[in-house]
Amino acid sequence: MSFEITILGSSSALPTSKRFPTAHLLKVDERFFLIDCGEGTQIQLRRFRVNPGRIHHIFISHLHGDHVFGLFGLLSTMGMMGRKVPVGLYGPERLEDMMKQHFSFFGSLPFGIDFHCPTPGDEGYLYEDDRLTVSTIPLKHRTPTFGFLFREKKRLLNVRKELIQAYGLGIADLVKVKAGEDFVTGDGKVIPNSKLTFPPYKQRSYAYISDTVYDPELSDRIRGIDLLFHEATFADRDKKLAEATRHSTAGQAATIAQQAGVRKLLIGHFSSRYRDYAHLVEEARRVFSNTEGVNDGDVYSIPLERVSTE
Amino acid sequence: MSFEITILGSSSALPTSKRFPTAHLLKVDERFFLIDCGEGTQIQLRRFRVNPGRIHHIFISHLHGDHVFGLFGLLSTMGMMGRKVPVGLYGPERLEDMMKQHFSFFGSLPFGIDFHCPTPGDEGYLYEDDRLTVSTIPLKHRTPTFGFLFREKKRLLNVRKELIQAYGLGIADLVKVKAGEDFVTGDGKVIPNSKLTFPPYKQRSYAYISDTVYDPELSDRIRGIDLLFHEATFADRDKKLAEATRHSTAGQAATIAQQAGVRKLLIGHFSSRYRDYAHLVEEARRVFSNTEGVNDGDVYSIPLERVSTE
Repeated sequence: MSFEITILGSSSALPTSKRFPTAHLLKVDERFFLIDCGEGTQIQLRRFRVNPGRIHHIFISHLHGDHVFGLFGLLSTMGMMGRKVPVGLYGPERLEDMMKQHFSFFGSLPFGIDFHCPTPGDEGYLYEDDRLTVSTIPLKHRTPTFGFLFREKKRLLNVRKELIQAYGLGIADLVKVKAGEDFVTGDGKVIPNSKLTFPPYKQRSYAYISDTVYDPELSDRIRGIDLLFHEATFADRDKKLAEATRHSTAGQAATIAQQAGVRKLLIGHFSSRYRDYAHLVEEARRVFSNTEGVNDGDVYSIPLERVSTE
Repeated sequence: MSFEITILGSSSALPTSKRFPTAHLLKVDERFFLIDCGEGTQIQLRRFRVNPGRIHHIFISHLHGDHVFGLFGLLSTMGMMGRKVPVGLYGPERLEDMMKQHFSFFGSLPFGIDFHCPTPGDEGYLYEDDRLTVSTIPLKHRTPTFGFLFREKKRLLNVRKELIQAYGLGIADLVKVKAGEDFVTGDGKVIPNSKLTFPPYKQRSYAYISDTVYDPELSDRIRGIDLLFHEATFADRDKKLAEATRHSTAGQAATIAQQAGVRKLLIGHFSSRYRDYAHLVEEARRVFSNTEGVNDGDVYSIPLERVSTE
């Protein structure tokens, strides 16, 4: 039962030989979700031994090349590998037009694409399955841009196995007990739920925020999450440049993490103007100590933990 | 005075973690020419320490993704690096429409693009400068496709320095002697050109042929060249598949090299169905011994040689 982020690309607009353009891969219980798809994403997937055919949902934050130019090759490769099942593609409104225009030059795919565009103001889920929800986080960049919050659904209570037989619980009883109800035995004795169950695993959560100017309102949307990726294109000394280009500094990313009370912060999307990124991480850690700067190939796993009963 | 090919990408349609999609870089006397531009070409340029800003001419063989998907990121990067001078883009007719459509979604560039489309039947040069000509080689693939022949211009004769002073040759005399004329001294004595000069350097040449079905007519177009790259997507046992997909086998590539009497053959664009490419190289060598299989990062240099006077 994994909940694991792999950094496929960590550069900003100009890639380097060690940092590919932006792409993250989220693996939740053997389901793969791709978040942004910079040039070379399919090559990074091969490098890190992920079969592109296992990706069924791709989330695109915005239509700047360093977040989307890998989509053409990845989708083409999926087609050449014989894919038949559709891919869900989630992103700004123009993404659909852009891809359709692209296919008019390079031919259509042997599988469908289900386009989903986040609706501003809609508080519903952009994506939902039996285990996970994805919410949209509106960002403030130079073009329509969205962050994404991935959160596991609330898990049911776990029933103590030795008591299932002891009290003769049937399937219908189990469903009720897992949902929190007490159990009444055949002779009318009430067994309290707390005696029958132990706490379920916590809902794990990951938010992806790239690209955006510093926006204190973001904190409310990601309060208390486990893992936050927030872009940190610039060092604090280049704050004015960050504002002008609608990006954030390392310190600003850390301020969001600190105000939102997240457990861990990842920063990346570093400008190639900095030869060394250590000082950006240092700046962030002064505000929020549990910060790491990401590199291509880094894997961050959120462990399973029981809900505290205290 | 270099004449050097760097293999930036050597895979066919499906890249691997070690083989990027197709791109070659030709360097002639510090001038850089990019030939095809598969996904990740800009990353390979950085890896092999070539400043993308030094490329002024890009030749695209055909509009299949593995030969062109890197163009979007490379041109975008050139713009972000502050490029002002135009780029010459040479390729199939639809390339211009495709790029214009692309820019309508991703914004225009701060520099111009001069599009040049090879005209079928036109025997003139697609490109020409003071040292080099580029000719088009029509190929037979599933979409309009062109190979390219790069050839140094004929060099002038080199005049023996010690004789310039001895006979008192002026600039106007030198121009004539370099062009092959004899020199007549002030007192009417004829000094034969062969005494005044030694042979110039040979014209070096490189042909790029990818993608194409086996076409014996190609030999005439590349007769006696120094270096030939010919695609070899398939092993000879998969000849039918090669025909069906309009590609060549290793043996077919070698047959072209042998019939054309080239000096050296490079094969690549190997299908990812073969784990190991050694047998493709073996197959080619049985027909044409001076064959090598290319890998990303390989550099092939054609040395300067004097024209033989025998």
